[in-house]
Amino acid sequence: MTTSRASDQTTASLLCEFLRLFYDKGWVAGTGGGICGALADGTMLMAPTGVHKERVTVDDLFRVDRQAAVVSPPKNPGLRLTECSTIFCAIAERRKAGSVMHSHALTAVLAADVARGGDRIIIRDLEMLKGIRGCTNADHHAVPVVDNTAREPELVAGIRRALDAPEFQHTACVLVRHHGAYIWGEDLWEAKRHAEVYHFLFEAVVGRARPA
Amino acid sequence: MTTSRASDQTTASLLCEFLRLFYDKGWVAGTGGGICGALADGTMLMAPTGVHKERVTVDDLFRVDRQAAVVSPPKNPGLRLTECSTIFCAIAERRKAGSVMHSHALTAVLAADVARGGDRIIIRDLEMLKGIRGCTNADHHAVPVVDNTAREPELVAGIRRALDAPEFQHTACVLVRHHGAYIWGEDLWEAKRHAEVYHFLFEAVVGRARPA
Amino acid sequence: MTTSRASDQTTASLLCEFLRLFYDKGWVAGTGGGICGALADGTMLMAPTGVHKERVTVDDLFRVDRQAAVVSPPKNPGLRLTECSTIFCAIAERRKAGSVMHSHALTAVLAADVARGGDRIIIRDLEMLKGIRGCTNADHHAVPVVDNTAREPELVAGIRRALDAPEFQHTACVLVRHHGAYIWGEDLWEAKRHAEVYHFLFEAVVGRARPA
Amino acid sequence: MTTSRASDQTTASLLCEFLRLFYDKGWVAGTGGGICGALADGTMLMAPTGVHKERVTVDDLFRVDRQAAVVSPPKNPGLRLTECSTIFCAIAERRKAGSVMHSHALTAVLAADVARGGDRIIIRDLEMLKGIRGCTNADHHAVPVVDNTAREPELVAGIRRALDAPEFQHTACVLVRHHGAYIWGEDLWEAKRHAEVYHFLFEAVVGRARPA
Repeated sequence: MTTSRASDQTTASLLCEFLRLFYDKGWVAGTGGGICGALADGTMLMAPTGVHKERVTVDDLFRVDRQAAVVSPPKNPGLRLTECSTIFCAIAERRKAGSVMHSHALTAVLAADVARGGDRIIIRDLEMLKGIRGCTNADHHAVPVVDNTAREPELVAGIRRALDAPEFQHTACVLVRHHGAYIWGEDLWEAKRHAEVYHFLFEAVVGRARPA
Repeated sequence: MTTSRASDQTTASLLCEFLRLFYDKGWVAGTGGGICGALADGTMLMAPTGVHKERVTVDDLFRVDRQAAVVSPPKNPGLRLTECSTIFCAIAERRKAGSVMHSHALTAVLAADVARGGDRIIIRDLEMLKGIRGCTNADHHAVPVVDNTAREPELVAGIRRALDAPEFQHTACVLVRHHGAYIWGEDLWEAKRHAEVYHFLFEAVVGRARPA
Repeated sequence: MTTSRASDQTTASLLCEFLRLFYDKGWVAGTGGGICGALADGTMLMAPTGVHKERVTVDDLFRVDRQAAVVSPPKNPGLRLTECSTIFCAIAERRKAGSVMHSHALTAVLAADVARGGDRIIIRDLEMLKGIRGCTNADHHAVPVVDNTAREPELVAGIRRALDAPEFQHTACVLVRHHGAYIWGEDLWEAKRHAEVYHFLFEAVVGRARPA
Repeated sequence: MTTSRASDQTTASLLCEFLRLFYDKGWVAGTGGGICGALADGTMLMAPTGVHKERVTVDDLFRVDRQAAVVSPPKNPGLRLTECSTIFCAIAERRKAGSVMHSHALTAVLAADVARGGDRIIIRDLEMLKGIRGCTNADHHAVPVVDNTAREPELVAGIRRALDAPEFQHTACVLVRHHGAYIWGEDLWEAKRHAEVYHFLFEAVVGRARPA
């Protein structure tokens, strides 16, 4: 098991491997969801939109700069860049994230439902909180919930506000109501860990909200 | 990843691959459920009835015309054409579907239960609605629920009525009460996407119907 | 896909394959559960007790006669015959079953709980009932629930009574309260189909018993 | 299938195989959870902390003595010994466990929630209790629930008290509130069986606590 900095080729392979993993977990079904990862030169690889995510190969990835402009498109001219590109870039910029994943998991939607229209959910009393960088299991961890918009680029403003809000400085996740979540880490491996941790926390929140 | 028009051989292979995938998801257990896909000449390949769907091979498929008459049966004389054949043809005709899948998922049954005897369920407040051709996330998406019948061919009339009803023109799915769902797309890949999207929506409807 | 009568070698392989499949579904976890299948000469192969069922190989199987006497033990002298052997034989005798599986699925336990101490559950309003030999989707299908006992051989009397009761002649399953289920078919393939159908039905019964 | 005493090499391989298995079951997601196993000379192999558990290889394991002092570290200097090491040693000492697994399963958290702040849950009316060494299906099986602490080594005192309490002498599991569970066996295979059995029991407790 290596924890050293991944080469660009490894990054591309891991992005596709993680999409298959996330598909198996039900987080990117129906062509939804996505992922990006930074390369050594600062550009980012992003998966295309509108495709079955578990079948994406390294040849299908877009290389984009930090303003979401395409530096190098995939060979297949039929592929289109993910609509999340500007969101991915906003998170990368404000949180120094080396990788961001976008989840369409039902459990993310149901966890956001627990906010009942409010702008956050509070997660507490769970050891798994320690899986989030900088958090302890005594935290009352606030995860922002932003309202959904008609198209994904319109989400950027709300997500930027959440990222800038002092009360959400410890989160590595933004929930989008009726939609899903954006989850990030300093590199691909932390993004994977945070993705697994937050989906666990969502399930805990939903499970505990049910009468027992 | 190819998005080009599949060859007939690819279509046959994909039908079997998707049956294995659907089996793993619990949508075609106990020999239930099925799938069909159109070939280049307009005939359709259909899986047999009464067999373990995850074990169907390309040699087991029936080739039928648009009136569900067998053009070319599989070599194994013990196999029988799916009882869904006339339903598959009705959907192909009225909705220009190149592929239809029939789901026996429990979540489809429980989602239809939410209609409490009514003729539809309304799905709303979910980004995943955008995964359905022509839909937006602001839609109040009506999915018809038709009553079950003793045998599958008797379902055709009810399904045809639902397909012809103006209020259901945007759906790519018909629920059959106590039974499951028919879900389609213009080709095999869209049918897969719609299958994943609708099963997600069913789970959301069922999950939200529970007290939290 | 073959539906022809399996050779003895195929039967042995399938028994092990199905144990792996059932393990993946959560039906034989923690060394619980089991399976048997009849050979051409009428003897039966049975899995050993107290072992991790997903790791059973053909060399681990016991060959027993119709009175559950061991005809041919496995090479490994540390293996012991399943405690279900007399139950398997009783079901094979009274229902001409060529294969019986014993499930430790939680859903079987929770479905039996729905009987609230009674001697049966009634399953209705489900197309999947047609997956049981001789049943229609209009049936009110009665599945017997027998009380658990301290040791498995003591279950035989209760299971025999259920098998002999006229009201349970259409079932291919006996539920054991707080324990699991026995499910059978005329051969291994029908036992697999019935296992998938009944577990689906159990989940439906449990899901519908919850407030929505 | 072998039930003979495993060689040290087999022990190392099995530890990694079981971590992959536990990951697939959702028990060690997000780098949480862990496992240890005793070697022939009495030292123990333990997985590192802070790594994706399904990717641990035999080269990543620490060899430690019975006081949790490292005898032989892995080659990769970036790896750190699990924080559970002193807990693993306490359980190995007091219960003669040859293997202990630490679960971060949500079902363990929700089962501990059922105690509503109390120091135990009682599990009864389940055949699966027989899967625990020394238990019968008539037992009212008490599983201790200890309060969580800020860091894992601080858990040792509470876990030791639970292990020493007469009323918990039959358990092979300690639940940690808001956190997960420690489950053990005399060897790796019994630890695996107990892990599967207890997680089944947790799900049963949680499922039965819901209104039906």
